[in-house]
Amino acid sequence: MLSERLLKDIDFIVELDKMKSVLRQTSLIDNSKRENDAEHSWHISVMALVLAEYANEKIDICKVIKMLLVHDLVEIYAGDTFCYDKQANMNKRERELKAADKIFGMLDEDKGSELRRLWEEFEEMKTKEAIFAASMDRLQPFFNNYYSGGGTWKKFNIPKGEVYKRIAPLKEASDELWQIAINMIEDACRKGYITDN
Amino acid sequence: MLSERLLKDIDFIVELDKMKSVLRQTSLIDNSKRENDAEHSWHISVMALVLAEYANEKIDICKVIKMLLVHDLVEIYAGDTFCYDKQANMNKRERELKAADKIFGMLDEDKGSELRRLWEEFEEMKTKEAIFAASMDRLQPFFNNYYSGGGTWKKFNIPKGEVYKRIAPLKEASDELWQIAINMIEDACRKGYITDN
Repeated sequence: MLSERLLKDIDFIVELDKMKSVLRQTSLIDNSKRENDAEHSWHISVMALVLAEYANEKIDICKVIKMLLVHDLVEIYAGDTFCYDKQANMNKRERELKAADKIFGMLDEDKGSELRRLWEEFEEMKTKEAIFAASMDRLQPFFNNYYSGGGTWKKFNIPKGEVYKRIAPLKEASDELWQIAINMIEDACRKGYITDN
Repeated sequence: MLSERLLKDIDFIVELDKMKSVLRQTSLIDNSKRENDAEHSWHISVMALVLAEYANEKIDICKVIKMLLVHDLVEIYAGDTFCYDKQANMNKRERELKAADKIFGMLDEDKGSELRRLWEEFEEMKTKEAIFAASMDRLQPFFNNYYSGGGTWKKFNIPKGEVYKRIAPLKEASDELWQIAINMIEDACRKGYITDN
């Protein structure tokens, strides 16, 4: 006899497959296609593993990775909201809360709550783990833009001030990574990837 | 002054973007496209988080996830080897060892070795964490085949014995998950997804 709990887990795992079809604005570095949420979530999880040593404060890397693995699950229903789209960001929270009820509600209460708490901690961006996780989430499309010759910065004429604002959590997360980000933003500006404002 | 170490880390992170273009044989459950290594690695990492409680022995889930995040990195250079392709599997080890030297060699020695050890532990499939990780790696395409109406089982006329052989590590990893797998294999056989042998 199979448990109801396990059958719910499998339904959830099957539903996760849809993350591979949630397209983001960011393209691959070789410009061959736009990336999706599953690819992005994997990339930032490995980035966290590689860059953890540069965190200003000692962080629980396991918690950071768990957060990053589930931080975009709500987008299965709420879709990806482009960070520089002010209009779409106005009702983002509302759409994502509804999506969170749906996706985490697929699991038994204790397990759904555990994953939802990881998502909420990420969203609130208060703990050192959440700040480091948010930094990875922002640094990866930043790298992809920089190394692909401008990416969404260039495509949507993003001004320097907006890029600095978006990558700001990194300043608190890591002095060394923040220095890299400043260098890249200034260089991206010189190269015409970002508009000077 | 930016450290050489950090610049290597960033080169490595940029190289990882290629995982999003390494195609696997497995298709998404909605049959819209074949999945790639980045998507697959993310899916099995979340699966491990969700299914850890069914492990027969207490496992270090953090280690399992780290293994799963890096277990396919060698495929950036060695390509994905289809598990049921006997010919391609003959020189797989040799191709992947060479690829491991290249990808993990991009990092400073201590960090490259740490990630390589995770990959080697996964490959050797001896520790309880590696056996659980291998089970996730095999169970995800298994689910995708089952829920997409046969997938690669049907496409390549895979016989039941081969499917049992491929999913065998799950027997050691988890009694409950093993029971699910048996039920699905027998049902897949009845539905004509797998040939009876």
